[in-house]
Amino acid sequence: MSTGRLEAFSDGVIAVAVTLLVLNISVPKLGANETLVHALLAQWPKYAAYLVSFLTIGIIWINHHVMVGRLRAANHQVLMLNLILLASIAVIPFATSLMATFLKEGAGQRLAAGIYAASFLVMGIAFASMNSYILLRAPQMLTTELSLARRRQILARSISGLLPYAIAIALSAVSAYVTLGICAGLAIFYALPVSSGTETTA
Amino acid sequence: MSTGRLEAFSDGVIAVAVTLLVLNISVPKLGANETLVHALLAQWPKYAAYLVSFLTIGIIWINHHVMVGRLRAANHQVLMLNLILLASIAVIPFATSLMATFLKEGAGQRLAAGIYAASFLVMGIAFASMNSYILLRAPQMLTTELSLARRRQILARSISGLLPYAIAIALSAVSAYVTLGICAGLAIFYALPVSSGTETTA
Amino acid sequence: MSTGRLEAFSDGVIAVAVTLLVLNISVPKLGANETLVHALLAQWPKYAAYLVSFLTIGIIWINHHVMVGRLRAANHQVLMLNLILLASIAVIPFATSLMATFLKEGAGQRLAAGIYAASFLVMGIAFASMNSYILLRAPQMLTTELSLARRRQILARSISGLLPYAIAIALSAVSAYVTLGICAGLAIFYALPVSSGTETTA
Amino acid sequence: MSTGRLEAFSDGVIAVAVTLLVLNISVPKLGANETLVHALLAQWPKYAAYLVSFLTIGIIWINHHVMVGRLRAANHQVLMLNLILLASIAVIPFATSLMATFLKEGAGQRLAAGIYAASFLVMGIAFASMNSYILLRAPQMLTTELSLARRRQILARSISGLLPYAIAIALSAVSAYVTLGICAGLAIFYALPVSSGTETTA
Repeated sequence: MSTGRLEAFSDGVIAVAVTLLVLNISVPKLGANETLVHALLAQWPKYAAYLVSFLTIGIIWINHHVMVGRLRAANHQVLMLNLILLASIAVIPFATSLMATFLKEGAGQRLAAGIYAASFLVMGIAFASMNSYILLRAPQMLTTELSLARRRQILARSISGLLPYAIAIALSAVSAYVTLGICAGLAIFYALPVSSGTETTA
Repeated sequence: MSTGRLEAFSDGVIAVAVTLLVLNISVPKLGANETLVHALLAQWPKYAAYLVSFLTIGIIWINHHVMVGRLRAANHQVLMLNLILLASIAVIPFATSLMATFLKEGAGQRLAAGIYAASFLVMGIAFASMNSYILLRAPQMLTTELSLARRRQILARSISGLLPYAIAIALSAVSAYVTLGICAGLAIFYALPVSSGTETTA
Repeated sequence: MSTGRLEAFSDGVIAVAVTLLVLNISVPKLGANETLVHALLAQWPKYAAYLVSFLTIGIIWINHHVMVGRLRAANHQVLMLNLILLASIAVIPFATSLMATFLKEGAGQRLAAGIYAASFLVMGIAFASMNSYILLRAPQMLTTELSLARRRQILARSISGLLPYAIAIALSAVSAYVTLGICAGLAIFYALPVSSGTETTA
Repeated sequence: MSTGRLEAFSDGVIAVAVTLLVLNISVPKLGANETLVHALLAQWPKYAAYLVSFLTIGIIWINHHVMVGRLRAANHQVLMLNLILLASIAVIPFATSLMATFLKEGAGQRLAAGIYAASFLVMGIAFASMNSYILLRAPQMLTTELSLARRRQILARSISGLLPYAIAIALSAVSAYVTLGICAGLAIFYALPVSSGTETTA
């Protein structure tokens, strides 16, 4: 199977998932004596969560593009690993909504933030698993031959990117804001030109 | 009509349907004395239903790709049979939500589980109908000539895949959990490498 | 501008619109003494509306494909007429939901059914307008040269397809069920092989 | 990276965002003594907002097509600027819903209208930023060599298109209707053939 329709389907799922994020930002219902400006400002976690999740999914889309671009064709395993990756991406609008809803609640905020970071970690693990299969188990499917050292290096980078999310989950025990801050920082880091060298050599 | 835009439209509908599944997983509203961890665990049928439906639709997408890949061109009948198949796929988020909502209810759980399995059966029948038209009624539209025996063999596999869903529907009279278990087992079976030989020869 | 991305964008909007139709079918909340089977049967207008709207949008997608397939390139007017057509398609999930919600209500059912048929009429007018511009005003943009008689014939068919919807709107004053029946009949007629000759000569 | 998948992903996000606009038009729940025709007419701001936002996003899609069509390839910066542009487009269904909900409210209507116009301004700034990077910082990535004067001219047009939205925001202090009127007027202006020359020379 050629990778063209794999890319088209993946682009579709990722595009829908990233756009569904906006459904989490609802038009506020004003309480008595509440002004619209206050009600809009009060839901700032929703805007922050929207931006962080949009950027993070967008970056995984870029990485997905690079990963699939290395493939000549797709077999059953690649298709299934890709499906699992897409399922992990499509669940992020839920985790985003959960985090944004509970961030300012007295109870549950740390758990919600931990789940938010965990949804990124799961997405990263699904990505690294697919990358690992492609690079180590099916190197004959690559468009360009790569040395084992080079393939291990690419994979090591995929895996090392998981660590900050594991730390963000652990720190959700301390504060939900710290977890959100780490997730936001990672999204901004990957968006900055400073990380573009990493992408280019991918 | 070439099959390019048929594939693009089908990819779009399937990608949206599979991503809409996440809308069934809602952020829980906590009751008095209820913790978030408890409320999240209590809605486990939604997570199970999400995974089973996502995998099942994903597998039908792979099969759709193989089926349409055999075609040189599409005529009116192919387009209409494809539309009916897409309509049966797009309704699965509803059946999924219905099953997940009623699985733990005292009443209605068996009917909801039966409808869930039935939605997969209907999708399978729509798929087999389209495959049957292509293989038996319009073999001149195939890219590669296939013997009648080979075409009947492919079709027999499409049709035999319907049986487990019929059994799952029948067993919903016994227990909704059995029905969900069969649907989950089928999704996992088709996802495993063991079934990849079947795909490859398709 | 080539028509490739015009098709891709149109496919995307139509695929999303057709899949959003399922959101109108909600999981019923059971009242006291109400069984699930009764609640599900009671919302049959939603299933009927889903099928009719899905087929009708699907058929306009096929016709759109034929229309755009005649074009070598797209200019500003074509792009804008296409946008207006897409806006008329994307509004159909709302009209569908309106009709399905009010069909069994004492008041408003005729208006809702009239609006439902009117949404198909507006879509048809937008389609005929785009077709008319392409065939009469910009024949130099066609891939294959067509005689004026042939172009007028194609256009006449686009326009004559509007009449049944106008009749369906008029008859909504008599009965909402008649209007729904006409819309369903039209969808089935266009889906049947008998109408495929019409498509093929398009 | 080639621009093909960049276009496919952008088309997907824009197609979903533009189609999600219809979710803002809800089926009215009739109050006592309220007729459906009255309830439907009362929510006219939703229809107006739907049309204005649909056209405006559609026009940015056309402009996006022209902008990306000038590129031979995409680097990290282009991908990130495109992601930010897509994030600004995907938020428009929320701003549209906010404006339509509050337009007829006593309080908050001016703020909501100002935010609506601001969402278009932000989208325009994101577009101009991406265009600016492409034209001034990465001219070697263009398919056709363009003189600096020509590139500055194209960019000046992108930037000058921001001014009317800034005025619309400022005038929201006077009246929400004026702001909506300006946004509607701009959408219609860009849709008219009179503005097509501008597009063609882009």
